[in-house]
Amino acid sequence: MSKLRILGVDPGSIRTGFALVDFSGQKFQHVHSGFLALGQGEMAARLGRVHSELSALIVTYQPDVAAIESVFVQKNVASAIKLGQARGAAISALACAQLEVAEYAPAKVKRSICGGGRAEKQQVNFMVQRLLNLQQALQEDQADALAVAICHGFHVPVRRTSGVGR
Amino acid sequence: MSKLRILGVDPGSIRTGFALVDFSGQKFQHVHSGFLALGQGEMAARLGRVHSELSALIVTYQPDVAAIESVFVQKNVASAIKLGQARGAAISALACAQLEVAEYAPAKVKRSICGGGRAEKQQVNFMVQRLLNLQQALQEDQADALAVAICHGFHVPVRRTSGVGR
Repeated sequence: MSKLRILGVDPGSIRTGFALVDFSGQKFQHVHSGFLALGQGEMAARLGRVHSELSALIVTYQPDVAAIESVFVQKNVASAIKLGQARGAAISALACAQLEVAEYAPAKVKRSICGGGRAEKQQVNFMVQRLLNLQQALQEDQADALAVAICHGFHVPVRRTSGVGR
Repeated sequence: MSKLRILGVDPGSIRTGFALVDFSGQKFQHVHSGFLALGQGEMAARLGRVHSELSALIVTYQPDVAAIESVFVQKNVASAIKLGQARGAAISALACAQLEVAEYAPAKVKRSICGGGRAEKQQVNFMVQRLLNLQQALQEDQADALAVAICHGFHVPVRRTSGVGR
């Protein structure tokens, strides 16, 4: 059975989570995950880092496909622009590397991992650790990136990718 | 007197305007401008194009600095995310090329070009043509990219760059 290497990304302008997970024979294996600490400095430099560091990860780990959460709700327009900018820096890195980008609604990710679309952050974090047989605690953005990568694995037979919101 | 080559960008998820303008001795010279027609296809591919085509323009035309309009107001969160994504793809291309990114509020751009912060689109378009001594009509996003590049030229002695919104 062929192995699928999935890159999960949880973009944000302060921290961007990333995760590489191998999926084969209905089993997941953790390859690498973490988050970019982008800090509070100049926004252009932060967006440049999101793009260039994700591009470097793709070169190093050669994922087959990428997965990202879709987003609909934000507190306000200002936070939506900031999140959008981080997403644009991230998604453009995936597209520039010719990766297909699968998008999943947050509730779908939670349902895939925890069985319920309204699961708490801690539940998702706990289940991600269990599914990947990890012993260490996971940072929140790292756990979210792992969760969307796992979600994609669960959905591969049904539907391998879907477009990022048009 | 040294010449400053300014790259103006007007990002959008359907069309992204770009402009290269040389500024020297308080005079502007049009180098190249136009817009990327991104269409209605998959968003990831469009964002990839924004990043990669701006990167290619930077390699070809070697600008010294980039300028972009800041953005505060959007109709709703969904349009703010879309605009933010296009901005993130564009700004990350500028930052990855080590360009400083100067940001100007829309009213400041209009005031620089037309003398008033509430100028109409057509006024900006007309004045951009006149300032650059262009004979041809300008597409709207192209004119906006030219306008922010010219705005940066006008502000160079006062303040060369400012950070993109934090």
